[in-house]
Amino acid sequence: MAPPPAAAEQIETTTTTAIHEEDDGQVVNPWEVSAKDGGKIDYDKLIDRFGCQRLDHALIQRVEHLTSCPAHVFLRRGVFFAHRDFAEILDAYERGDNFYLYTGRGPSSEALHLGHLIPFMFTKYLQDVFKVPLVIQLTDDEKFLWKNLTVEECQRLARENAKDIIACGFDISKTFIFADFNYVGGAFYKNMVEVAKRVTYNQAVGIFGFTGEDHIGKVSFPPVQAVPSFPSSFPHLFSGKENLRCLIPCAIDQDPYFRMTRDVAPKLGYHKPALIESLFFPALQGETGKMSASDPNSAIYVTDSAKDIKNKVNKHAFSGGQDSIEKHRQLGANLEVDIPVKYLSFFLEDDAELEHIKKEYGAGRMLTGEVKQRLIQVLTELVERHRRARAAVTDEMVDAFMAVRPLPHMFG
Amino acid sequence: MAPPPAAAEQIETTTTTAIHEEDDGQVVNPWEVSAKDGGKIDYDKLIDRFGCQRLDHALIQRVEHLTSCPAHVFLRRGVFFAHRDFAEILDAYERGDNFYLYTGRGPSSEALHLGHLIPFMFTKYLQDVFKVPLVIQLTDDEKFLWKNLTVEECQRLARENAKDIIACGFDISKTFIFADFNYVGGAFYKNMVEVAKRVTYNQAVGIFGFTGEDHIGKVSFPPVQAVPSFPSSFPHLFSGKENLRCLIPCAIDQDPYFRMTRDVAPKLGYHKPALIESLFFPALQGETGKMSASDPNSAIYVTDSAKDIKNKVNKHAFSGGQDSIEKHRQLGANLEVDIPVKYLSFFLEDDAELEHIKKEYGAGRMLTGEVKQRLIQVLTELVERHRRARAAVTDEMVDAFMAVRPLPHMFG
Repeated sequence: MAPPPAAAEQIETTTTTAIHEEDDGQVVNPWEVSAKDGGKIDYDKLIDRFGCQRLDHALIQRVEHLTSCPAHVFLRRGVFFAHRDFAEILDAYERGDNFYLYTGRGPSSEALHLGHLIPFMFTKYLQDVFKVPLVIQLTDDEKFLWKNLTVEECQRLARENAKDIIACGFDISKTFIFADFNYVGGAFYKNMVEVAKRVTYNQAVGIFGFTGEDHIGKVSFPPVQAVPSFPSSFPHLFSGKENLRCLIPCAIDQDPYFRMTRDVAPKLGYHKPALIESLFFPALQGETGKMSASDPNSAIYVTDSAKDIKNKVNKHAFSGGQDSIEKHRQLGANLEVDIPVKYLSFFLEDDAELEHIKKEYGAGRMLTGEVKQRLIQVLTELVERHRRARAAVTDEMVDAFMAVRPLPHMFG
Repeated sequence: MAPPPAAAEQIETTTTTAIHEEDDGQVVNPWEVSAKDGGKIDYDKLIDRFGCQRLDHALIQRVEHLTSCPAHVFLRRGVFFAHRDFAEILDAYERGDNFYLYTGRGPSSEALHLGHLIPFMFTKYLQDVFKVPLVIQLTDDEKFLWKNLTVEECQRLARENAKDIIACGFDISKTFIFADFNYVGGAFYKNMVEVAKRVTYNQAVGIFGFTGEDHIGKVSFPPVQAVPSFPSSFPHLFSGKENLRCLIPCAIDQDPYFRMTRDVAPKLGYHKPALIESLFFPALQGETGKMSASDPNSAIYVTDSAKDIKNKVNKHAFSGGQDSIEKHRQLGANLEVDIPVKYLSFFLEDDAELEHIKKEYGAGRMLTGEVKQRLIQVLTELVERHRRARAAVTDEMVDAFMAVRPLPHMFG
């Protein structure tokens, strides 16, 4: 269980790396994402501030080589753009060592939007190509602590969200889904207490920006999200495999939790969890933050009808095209700010078609209406596919994914 | 589940009632008990500062009347001297409403001393005369958080301490013993989160005196000790009895936890738990605080031999007698500071004999040696009785007391 000593000595969170408000004017933490002066998030600055690494082309090629599969579109297009120790995961995998995946969701809203699906779509790809087990945490306790909801409502939302997650196609023989209010206890609780003992209040303030007026539930929560990174939190899965490495696919706003976790892990004899981190999925109105479940017009929901999608894209998707057709033919679209192109770069899998659209649209030969038309097609198919898959998820399947059980064939 | 509105509106903890350091120079909190300038604890000031009530003669008479039993020596002699809402418990009991008892222990040391036994001896009496169920919490997580011990060592100590507790004679058909590392989860965890959401960090600092350098494990702990006050934390015992009242016998240093609990309880729809609180059992060297398990000569342990007891009492028990026999015959003993008399007032059950000793010793007609001789007898009998009872407690009995099970005959 001895971690590499060099890694153990490198401290990742200090009271000086506070992330709730920073000199560069961006606010990125698990509860708020906003760019400076309503502009775009500067991801390069975020990488520097957080101290993670950029996911470069060589790493992506290594993934293709090791898995004998083409890289996921989210890798090829830089949606998952940053990482911590992902190379170490690949090194270990190349040596024949296994790892497990951990991701999760705070079940705040009944209907998921497309931004919510991204980590799950990507995690499914990782599970498929690496053939490894996966634990998915539903932080119903976090949502109870941060929102004005009852415990029961948070538990109900967790089960509803579990259906959307299962609809992403996870392999039940390799996947354990759990909700905190049901699962916290035993080895999981012991690890929570072990982590909590090793983080001072001042450090927590530095990482999460708590104030004295915040309730102690918020201060108590970070260990709950930390401990799924440790195999011993799942004795029914990983008994005797306490040295297993963990890889966490997530949006980069979750980085603070895992910087804290990575500082503590070596002190408990675990590997630091590795991370692979995504951009935020932009709002329809433009790329100044991440989509918000509270503004229905800022997002496409998995429950939206074909008509909803058509209306939202046509009405609200911010266009980089010019004001008049003449001007557009002359100057072309500004692809940097164009939401239809941005969305297509997430969800249109055909690289050649995407390049064609960007070239023609950028040169003014293709109009905004045509690009939006193609996006509406792509999103309607995606949402329809999800809706059909979700409708097939029964309560019994939810129970089966959430059953505390061994996974006999979780590797390979 | 509606609590009395008057009680619900009365706030018991504020940031201004900090108890870790006070104007009167006494420090009394769950982790430290020390009087001003090495003097005696001023319990009257403590009652004023904490805002609890003195347990008066009329209440004790009511207990005798309601239970048709003589009051326990710890009641008659003022060992349990303060309370919160104990009268309401008696009112409810008189109306035919039941209640349950909750006490506990932080399992820090292998051998208990006499001070540790006091709440359990008294709780056994309460269980016997009121014929009510009892939950006993072993806070192995607290000890892990505050001491330099492993989780496993704290769990082992919890089981060892459970044997001493069982040896006090609790009725297995009415008693559930649990250790936090084993029991936290489910309804208990939900209640922890409900409580944590309703206490701000500033309030916790006001009550417990945490600093920014304290780890967040300490900040997270108070809800763990709070929630056994709520019947819903024990669904296997009190399902459908969520309105049951709770009475907590404890030493007064635990009051901060329950002031916090009493503020939160009405917000969750529960009765405020009632308290009946004891003095600290003094050290052999004199009454300036409570006995310390870390100084072996300050305390009589339940593992001490007859010879140990004799040596400790003769060598270390602080005497209020005079320096010479002549002076003693003339002035008599100072009973206020005399530890042998103090200890006899805890453990010598015969009121007439105690009065006789106090009278004769105080008048100088009895010598310190004679009083110590009688104390050695009383303590040796008590410790021998405990040792025999503890030797009869098997691991199977511990498992039986700690089994999560219904208690079909817990009332009456």
